Amino acid sequence: MSKIRIGIVGYGNLGKGVELAIRSNPDMTLAFVATRRAPETVTLQTAGIPVYRYADLAAHQNDADVVIVCGGSATDLPEQTPALAKLFNVVDSFDTHARIPEHFANVDAAAKETGHVAMISVGWDPGMFSLARLYGNCILPDGKDYTFWGKGVSQGHSDAIRRVEGVQDGKQYTVPSESAMAAVRSGAQPELTTRQKHTRECYVVAKPGADLAKIEQDIKTMPNYFSDYDTTVHFISQEELNRDHSGIPHGGFVMRSGVTGVNGEHKHLIEYSLKLDSNPEFTTNVLVAFARAAARFAAEGTSGCKTVFDVPPAYLSPLSGDVLRAKML
Amino acid sequence: MSKIRIGIVGYGNLGKGVELAIRSNPDMTLAFVATRRAPETVTLQTAGIPVYRYADLAAHQNDADVVIVCGGSATDLPEQTPALAKLFNVVDSFDTHARIPEHFANVDAAAKETGHVAMISVGWDPGMFSLARLYGNCILPDGKDYTFWGKGVSQGHSDAIRRVEGVQDGKQYTVPSESAMAAVRSGAQPELTTRQKHTRECYVVAKPGADLAKIEQDIKTMPNYFSDYDTTVHFISQEELNRDHSGIPHGGFVMRSGVTGVNGEHKHLIEYSLKLDSNPEFTTNVLVAFARAAARFAAEGTSGCKTVFDVPPAYLSPLSGDVLRAKML
Repeated sequence: MSKIRIGIVGYGNLGKGVELAIRSNPDMTLAFVATRRAPETVTLQTAGIPVYRYADLAAHQNDADVVIVCGGSATDLPEQTPALAKLFNVVDSFDTHARIPEHFANVDAAAKETGHVAMISVGWDPGMFSLARLYGNCILPDGKDYTFWGKGVSQGHSDAIRRVEGVQDGKQYTVPSESAMAAVRSGAQPELTTRQKHTRECYVVAKPGADLAKIEQDIKTMPNYFSDYDTTVHFISQEELNRDHSGIPHGGFVMRSGVTGVNGEHKHLIEYSLKLDSNPEFTTNVLVAFARAAARFAAEGTSGCKTVFDVPPAYLSPLSGDVLRAKML
Repeated sequence: MSKIRIGIVGYGNLGKGVELAIRSNPDMTLAFVATRRAPETVTLQTAGIPVYRYADLAAHQNDADVVIVCGGSATDLPEQTPALAKLFNVVDSFDTHARIPEHFANVDAAAKETGHVAMISVGWDPGMFSLARLYGNCILPDGKDYTFWGKGVSQGHSDAIRRVEGVQDGKQYTVPSESAMAAVRSGAQPELTTRQKHTRECYVVAKPGADLAKIEQDIKTMPNYFSDYDTTVHFISQEELNRDHSGIPHGGFVMRSGVTGVNGEHKHLIEYSLKLDSNPEFTTNVLVAFARAAARFAAEGTSGCKTVFDVPPAYLSPLSGDVLRAKML
């Protein structure tokens, strides 16, 4: 069998993660990387792979079976995924939950027009967490959903800290509340807002001579970001920040608490959790598995936009149905 | 839209659980129950539902959209599921892992012959745990699987206790080892046998005047069942056993520990767990959700045998793709 040829569009954290993930999937090969930068300024981790200009991709339409679009959800993907779906089978990690229906419609139209398969919002949330929510809801219809995020780095909150006067550098962790999780695990089905479910931990490097008390006050009272949370601020040196907080860990928990029986007398808890050393590398591993499914849908002649909800789990695996049933069922 | 008409074959714990589960799924209705017992001896929990003889089911072929086969895996399902797949779309919970390929082949042939859809091995293990293993393997190809069962009642081990001389009654719980789970969660990827992963807890009612020390010794040294495990024996009264150990709880944990990065420097843990007050009622809730998928496959004209690996998750839900994307993705 010939290998699935993967193209990468965008060479930031995600693009680099896809490049590494392909190495762990022997049925795949990296076809090319495309970028909006000048190709000659981009150095890949893999020798002998061409780097194309984003604007020139139409000339390379036959060079990849699936293209993984590694841009940001704010401005890149709403434009790039529909455009690329006219040229390739595509997979993206669009994660602006509120705009998913709109993005789906745009990508679906483009993909159907040209007979391609497109998969959007692939990753862990949306993605694997969405699957955990869907399976949980279908199995325990009399129940309640809970999603907790963390412990992990929030880029938006870290940026917000760094804009505070007197701050040189900083990093923010979103931390799920142990007591809120314990309440859910008890089967009590409490009403909890996102804010009750999480606390915020800030590691801050102050500029020389800055007023630490004022920085702490400014962070803790910042509207939208911190004012409604239980926030802790730790002042550390730049060396400590670089040494101990340079990673991009993340994770979280999806819980479905439900009941069965004549009068709901039996409680059940389904829990799905992730603990990730590298948020982007885990996301790209998910993208690559779903790229395999996209190739399979395309080989079947299917077209249009799909999400993780539409993919038979067996399509994610390089193994045959026989082997999966014998070894994994 | 008309409701999905569900037939139940076999009216033990599973059959009764399916009957209750249908009440929580407003798009479904109970069509009939069939039994090998004399129908007039069977009293349902639902008024107005016909009880048919198993042998007469051919006459009721048009009365159900999907039949859930609620027999045992040892002798009932290998015979009943292929036979019923010639009459109906069927779902079963066949759970003898080693014999799944053989059962699949038999059911597939019967279902294809008559254009029906059949789903086998639906439940939590095999079933939801199989899905957790498959997703985990596809997302973290460089990794290792761990399945822990419990804390829960093992029927086979409870039966074994009750056969010991001097024992009046007894119940056995399989308990996952906290230290083994902690080792896996650390990312160390230890080699663990099933035996290292579990301990066994026995609650025993001794006959009057029985030799307790001998009972404990006989249990702890029983080959295959207890001799290779760390087993504890608690003697209690029949009243205590009835009061505190009459339930059928179960559950467990599926973990996938894997690495990504240039040299596997980033560790990731995916964990899926269940904590169930009623093992049979949870299993039947899974069966009912997959019966919905069977009805959808049948409506599409698909036939043959399928497992949980072949089902797009969206097929388990009564909600439309639009709603799922807007609310759950």
